Amino acid sequence: MARLVMKFGGTSVADMDRIRHVAGLVKREVDAGNEVAVAVSAMSGKTNELVALTKDAAAMHDAREYDVVVSSGEQVTSGLLALTLQEMGVSARSWLGWQIPIRTSGAHAAARIQEIETSQLVERMGQGQVAVVAGFQGLGPDGRITTLGRGGTDTSAVALAAALNADRCDIYTDVDGVYTTDPRIVEKARKLEKVSYEEMLELASLGAKVLQTRSVELAMAQGVRVQVLSSFEDAPGTLVCDEDEIVEQELVSGIAYSKNEAKITLINVKDTPGVAAAIFGPLADQSINVDMIVQNISEDGRTTDLTFTVTREDLKRAVSVIESSCKDIGYEKLISDESVTKVSVIGVGMRSHAGVAQTMFRTLAEKGINIQVISTSEIKVSVLIDDQYTELAVRALHTAYELDE
Amino acid sequence: MARLVMKFGGTSVADMDRIRHVAGLVKREVDAGNEVAVAVSAMSGKTNELVALTKDAAAMHDAREYDVVVSSGEQVTSGLLALTLQEMGVSARSWLGWQIPIRTSGAHAAARIQEIETSQLVERMGQGQVAVVAGFQGLGPDGRITTLGRGGTDTSAVALAAALNADRCDIYTDVDGVYTTDPRIVEKARKLEKVSYEEMLELASLGAKVLQTRSVELAMAQGVRVQVLSSFEDAPGTLVCDEDEIVEQELVSGIAYSKNEAKITLINVKDTPGVAAAIFGPLADQSINVDMIVQNISEDGRTTDLTFTVTREDLKRAVSVIESSCKDIGYEKLISDESVTKVSVIGVGMRSHAGVAQTMFRTLAEKGINIQVISTSEIKVSVLIDDQYTELAVRALHTAYELDE
Repeated sequence: MARLVMKFGGTSVADMDRIRHVAGLVKREVDAGNEVAVAVSAMSGKTNELVALTKDAAAMHDAREYDVVVSSGEQVTSGLLALTLQEMGVSARSWLGWQIPIRTSGAHAAARIQEIETSQLVERMGQGQVAVVAGFQGLGPDGRITTLGRGGTDTSAVALAAALNADRCDIYTDVDGVYTTDPRIVEKARKLEKVSYEEMLELASLGAKVLQTRSVELAMAQGVRVQVLSSFEDAPGTLVCDEDEIVEQELVSGIAYSKNEAKITLINVKDTPGVAAAIFGPLADQSINVDMIVQNISEDGRTTDLTFTVTREDLKRAVSVIESSCKDIGYEKLISDESVTKVSVIGVGMRSHAGVAQTMFRTLAEKGINIQVISTSEIKVSVLIDDQYTELAVRALHTAYELDE
Repeated sequence: MARLVMKFGGTSVADMDRIRHVAGLVKREVDAGNEVAVAVSAMSGKTNELVALTKDAAAMHDAREYDVVVSSGEQVTSGLLALTLQEMGVSARSWLGWQIPIRTSGAHAAARIQEIETSQLVERMGQGQVAVVAGFQGLGPDGRITTLGRGGTDTSAVALAAALNADRCDIYTDVDGVYTTDPRIVEKARKLEKVSYEEMLELASLGAKVLQTRSVELAMAQGVRVQVLSSFEDAPGTLVCDEDEIVEQELVSGIAYSKNEAKITLINVKDTPGVAAAIFGPLADQSINVDMIVQNISEDGRTTDLTFTVTREDLKRAVSVIESSCKDIGYEKLISDESVTKVSVIGVGMRSHAGVAQTMFRTLAEKGINIQVISTSEIKVSVLIDDQYTELAVRALHTAYELDE
């Protein structure tokens, strides 16, 4: 007997037929003798519809009222799934955030879970009752409904698994696991049986939409074993776990890419102390996240070129921030470029192996792809390239690191 | 300065444009210096949609989960109206049943309000904040959401007005008041300026869908002055109040009719003690409500004919109940008839005036309309007639009692 948390996203509970299918998946775990808690999202499209209504009501909305409106979607699915389970003969009840309660911070619309009181849930689950928990929502210190931000049901599920000391948190979604790279680009992409938290974090932050970054951080911090699997197919998914649990760790686990990049280059920046602070301080003040930064060695000892990347959404704002600080920074020219992609090679194995970066550089060179910017972390090497070479680069690297099926 | 409760039904909050219009009506009362609490229904159609989902999930549904699902509609509109008021510069916040709380009985899906804790509301309203209360819902003794049954937001509003000791409860709906009769039948029907609780109760139970019967009972018991008015037109409505407040009480306030009637006649019933109990006991056991009953005097001292009415929905069940008790009752033949209408003349004035019933009988006789069954109460005379004469009867009576405009 195990204690499981199962999470179902919007596409998995899109209509009553899908909800019945989900109930069947839950029943199977119950029949196998497991104690089960379920976290559910709103029916797909519902949250967008509710958000649109709040925007129509008030452009600059009160986040507390926003939360009242948008949290209703998960309330509906929790009740419907409980009813459907009952109809199948499975004891079940719905739990809203305020009923458990799932206590959160007071940051409405972007609240963080602080504490989950599990005594009631544990008692009922021990009696064989499935706890169907409305995801995405909690109770703020003001006694009002809070929501966790988009994709928050992943976080609800992982936090619930941690609080319940669950053996595993199964995240059912519309993909069947984590792949070595995007299967739409590389046909031979393989589903990973296991992936470490650190690698999953890098993959998530690079735009692999399998899991919300925050939920992976939480799983890592709390040691929650998370399985990503499909509610549409009956097949094992990918287990996100501690790297110690991965016996045959590969050198590189995956190749990721992000097209949501934009590059800004400042030509002939004065090469004096404090210039970096003059550039990046104003950007930070505007909550503009800077990713890769490269500064060349100054040839003449007086000026240098400086390149950095931001997300494409932030590009316009970033340029205007820099231009308005032009005098303080002192540069000759600003060049921005949106036709770039960041390609990354990820693997905890590279901590103990040299030559991983070198393989990447050589492979790209062989294909005639120019590397514009390089950045590295302990388990990742990222390069910025011209985005027309994205597919070529990803395919070549997938083969070079022997990830092809 | 007055303290007001305003209630808006589903058609009044059907979409964001309607909600903005409603917010304007609320703002006007706030600008006039009034303290305002608002009770809102779900957007029209929403509750039906949610009910259909619960039926799809489980034919015999758990009423506790049903309440979780269907109560979400009012949650959404309460948040949206609060946002819209804020956008207009009016301080407002939404209140869900569990937040106030509105404590109810544990009869999920048909709960009764037991107590409303008003301290928080009174404090905020005193500071000029509009309390936007989600109608139709409360908190049960089990700590879960309850709902009050269809049309429950009228009851929410009246109970709130009683608890807040409000000067008036304004029920905004899609009709602009209570009329002397159905204006679709009688062009000269007049809107009543005032109507007594007792008369309104008779009108409501006869199918005038202006107010839910339960809310009128509650208003009468608690002495809440209720105004029925349209959210679509800018005109005073009808005040439902104690008859003492109605200075010029008319003899007859209105003519009502109900087509939802069916007649059952038992021919040659044994005229012995206990026969009525043998007939109506089994019907009561099946929760079939019997309205009018007529038993003729027995001619031969041994058998008699007995006629009674039930609603059309209950007719089939009623017939089968009677037929299965045929032996116990002892009758020769059962005749059922759905082509009947009940026409009623209502007025508290008839308590102190004779001849009201006589005017009715004479008027119908002059038009050649046969009266099948008669029943009377202190403030009402009802007759059952062939339903093809409905319009003719209602028009003639409206003129006879001098109700024409």
